Amino acid sequence: MQKFTPTLIFLLLAACQPTGSPPPELADAAARPSFSTSTNEAYDFDTIPSYAGNHQAVYDYIDDHLDEHFAAMQRWLRQPSISAQDVGIDEMAALVRQDLEDIGFAEAEIVPTDGHPGVWGYYDAGAARTLVVYLMYDVQPVNPEDWESPPFAAELIDHELGKVVMARGATNQKGPERAFLNALESIIAVDGKLPVNIMVTAEGEEELGSPHYPQIVDAYVDRLQTADAVMFPFNSQRPDGTVSVILGVKGIIYFEMIANGGAWGGPAVAEIHGSYKAIVGSPVWQLVQALSTLVSADGNTILVPGYYDDIRPPNDEESRLLNAGIEQWSDQQQQEILGVSQWIDGMTGIDAAIEYLYTTTMNIDGIWAGYTGEGTKTILPHRATAKVDSRLPPDIDPDEAIARIRAHLDNSGFEDIEIRQLGGYPASQTSVDAPPVQAALSVFKKYADDLAVQPRVAGSAPFYQFTDRLGLPLVPAGLGFGTGAHAPNEVMLIKPAEGTAAAGLADIEKAYVDFIYALSVSDD
Amino acid sequence: MQKFTPTLIFLLLAACQPTGSPPPELADAAARPSFSTSTNEAYDFDTIPSYAGNHQAVYDYIDDHLDEHFAAMQRWLRQPSISAQDVGIDEMAALVRQDLEDIGFAEAEIVPTDGHPGVWGYYDAGAARTLVVYLMYDVQPVNPEDWESPPFAAELIDHELGKVVMARGATNQKGPERAFLNALESIIAVDGKLPVNIMVTAEGEEELGSPHYPQIVDAYVDRLQTADAVMFPFNSQRPDGTVSVILGVKGIIYFEMIANGGAWGGPAVAEIHGSYKAIVGSPVWQLVQALSTLVSADGNTILVPGYYDDIRPPNDEESRLLNAGIEQWSDQQQQEILGVSQWIDGMTGIDAAIEYLYTTTMNIDGIWAGYTGEGTKTILPHRATAKVDSRLPPDIDPDEAIARIRAHLDNSGFEDIEIRQLGGYPASQTSVDAPPVQAALSVFKKYADDLAVQPRVAGSAPFYQFTDRLGLPLVPAGLGFGTGAHAPNEVMLIKPAEGTAAAGLADIEKAYVDFIYALSVSDD
Repeated sequence: MQKFTPTLIFLLLAACQPTGSPPPELADAAARPSFSTSTNEAYDFDTIPSYAGNHQAVYDYIDDHLDEHFAAMQRWLRQPSISAQDVGIDEMAALVRQDLEDIGFAEAEIVPTDGHPGVWGYYDAGAARTLVVYLMYDVQPVNPEDWESPPFAAELIDHELGKVVMARGATNQKGPERAFLNALESIIAVDGKLPVNIMVTAEGEEELGSPHYPQIVDAYVDRLQTADAVMFPFNSQRPDGTVSVILGVKGIIYFEMIANGGAWGGPAVAEIHGSYKAIVGSPVWQLVQALSTLVSADGNTILVPGYYDDIRPPNDEESRLLNAGIEQWSDQQQQEILGVSQWIDGMTGIDAAIEYLYTTTMNIDGIWAGYTGEGTKTILPHRATAKVDSRLPPDIDPDEAIARIRAHLDNSGFEDIEIRQLGGYPASQTSVDAPPVQAALSVFKKYADDLAVQPRVAGSAPFYQFTDRLGLPLVPAGLGFGTGAHAPNEVMLIKPAEGTAAAGLADIEKAYVDFIYALSVSDD
Repeated sequence: MQKFTPTLIFLLLAACQPTGSPPPELADAAARPSFSTSTNEAYDFDTIPSYAGNHQAVYDYIDDHLDEHFAAMQRWLRQPSISAQDVGIDEMAALVRQDLEDIGFAEAEIVPTDGHPGVWGYYDAGAARTLVVYLMYDVQPVNPEDWESPPFAAELIDHELGKVVMARGATNQKGPERAFLNALESIIAVDGKLPVNIMVTAEGEEELGSPHYPQIVDAYVDRLQTADAVMFPFNSQRPDGTVSVILGVKGIIYFEMIANGGAWGGPAVAEIHGSYKAIVGSPVWQLVQALSTLVSADGNTILVPGYYDDIRPPNDEESRLLNAGIEQWSDQQQQEILGVSQWIDGMTGIDAAIEYLYTTTMNIDGIWAGYTGEGTKTILPHRATAKVDSRLPPDIDPDEAIARIRAHLDNSGFEDIEIRQLGGYPASQTSVDAPPVQAALSVFKKYADDLAVQPRVAGSAPFYQFTDRLGLPLVPAGLGFGTGAHAPNEVMLIKPAEGTAAAGLADIEKAYVDFIYALSVSDD
């Protein structure tokens, strides 16, 4: 049986206050901006009408063909496509391309990149509106022995919520993706064609951090910029049926800080005997001291000059969304799941939520140097490295953030610390008022009792490719429930048990049908 | 062919000044004591008479039995005794015990410890003086494929200096040890008995840091305290024949500093998603910030209050020894070997030598936390650890040093940092005027043209067990040359080629004979 494990998203649970406060010696938040909502008003989701369209013939077609639709999903899930190990990647790309062609996409092409290939598809409906659909066809690696059912068997198994399909990729992301294509097939089968044009960009490296996805966009950027919206097929429901919609992500810079011996001193070639510390400088101390200047003594306030200059408080729209959702934020519940006793500075409630979503961070993901085994070894290492990431709210430019850190290190006497950037991109934000968001919310209201619309998550994704580069509103959307992404026993709910509020495959596909039609007429 | 690789000792080479100076931003040596010699006088080794005794009958016996003596050494070298892997340890302990009994030791006993066993031997000569001989019978592990001749074959092979025996333990330490026992056998064979009583304490865990050697001393401490001197059989010669004698070592404390999530905040159970840094404290930052308070920004001056209080400058005797040896100290040569561009604060010459030998250090041997692999992983680790060692010149108490660090961390707001001590012991110092040192030096003058007597090395060894606990002067002594300790192709010179100044086995044994006799009459 599967359990629901929340990850980055708000946990909409009963509020509860934590106890305790941080050690006063370590509190040093003077330089960190403190934000609050700009209004006490809460977003009123009652203003969004439930989608009124009825596409009964298409719904009936879906019900009549549900077994074939599930078989199509199984076909995708049974094709391994592990990007990190280059297992089945080319076969899966070919499968995606062929399916697009079979569905009726006028263009269906493999897109070479410097990494795994992408797939481009264009369905020309001769329609006024064009929807860009982002797909990822790769999956995380597996340890088959950890699975209750083999990860590429894609069998239907029993779950407390009903029948689920268990497979690597079931919910992240092939399951909802193939459900969306089933919906397209159904519309075409019944109505002859889609009511919107569709541009598909599929990549096979999402699990690697999408290093070559920009090359796929590059190849079609002029056409992509003419579209109206971007959608990711996504299982957005919680087990209780609540639909969670995410409107923004933070950006990120990820870099290594490296200290080596060199002209300044320190062993440059290899570790030396530790007794030489008496007269030889240490790259490890240099890294530790350089790192220590980046943040306050408690590690929570960034001391790089200007680093907070460009961040902003929640705007009115975001404030109303925060106010609408905050009654379900629980400090205690999240802290229990994380194994954390308290938030920094003893923050609670909406203060913690705003800090979580609106501040920038400086985080050490890893650090290493010298001897890290059991017992004692007395060496003066010649090299020390830290992996550091910084989450970037909207309006912080990644290049400028790196430049500020570089300048600060130089001004603090740490010119010899090397910064090796491993990645970076800005934040992405879509307005709740954007047509595809309103279309998705109106469809979700037709099927679900509760909406949870988050202005942003604290995590990062390269959505700026769509919102900033293409200038398009973006909505990850879809009914459905899944869990186990990046873990054993990944599942997606297919046939809900009686009493389960989350949607099964049929309703997921019907909601996609409604979304496509809603989008075709939105903001007309 | 083997090459000589100096390790911790002074490099007695032509002096040369380095260029360059440290980055001014990082120079912060205000709090570090600066020492100089107390006198400009240099120790005059001409005042030490060359040993005048002549034990021709014993020398002749050695020459006549050199093949059997080398065979006895091979017998030790061919018995593996790798303490780290528990290979051959019990067999080697039995071999040492049996050899002592065969030589004529009245007591020859295995000494159980909580680790590998020790061996105790007592030779009762009915003499006025008693010499404690420290032996280690264990060796470092081997990778046989890296060796020119198998590490436990102990074959004679050609070397630029002559015939050497190649084996793990050849010079560290079985070779010189069995040479010393050969000398004892020869005296007894010719003169009927030794001129001094001998107490042997042998351990099988030197390569593990001698964790249970104190238990061996415990078992015989009352008797050991009645002895007059301690000697380690040691190949003290350089290839050019110069005999290097070391009179002191620094002590050390070795500890881990560990930061964990807990009541103060931070993830306590496992790593969490890095985006939570916005509202969750980081054990890695806590460790970095705690470490950063231990030393100045350049990493070279310890900022723990009182940490330098008890260290002292070279006394008159040590100053004379430093002045006698400093003309052969070469900054450039040492820096080239170490791959270091300059010493800290641009120090050179005797200033650097004194800093090296007389200051205490704070060194990070290793540090690790979180993700240390290739590429990016965005986590907030729940644990961070640093391995730290501090070298302790004489008069610094290890327990007090740890207590000062603990108090400093507590006073700086880092009560939550755990200190896990892995080892620690004080320094050891013997006066050049001590009878066994004078005895050794007078014997060395008989065989070698040059002496290099160092008041101290910057490295550490638990010699305090002898000098402080037993109150005995200590001298690591012996002619002979070897290299490759802890490395492949370890060798000891047995039959020097024509023109080689370093001694072969015969002279090594004759010098041990002289040393035993010199000791029997010294300071009478």
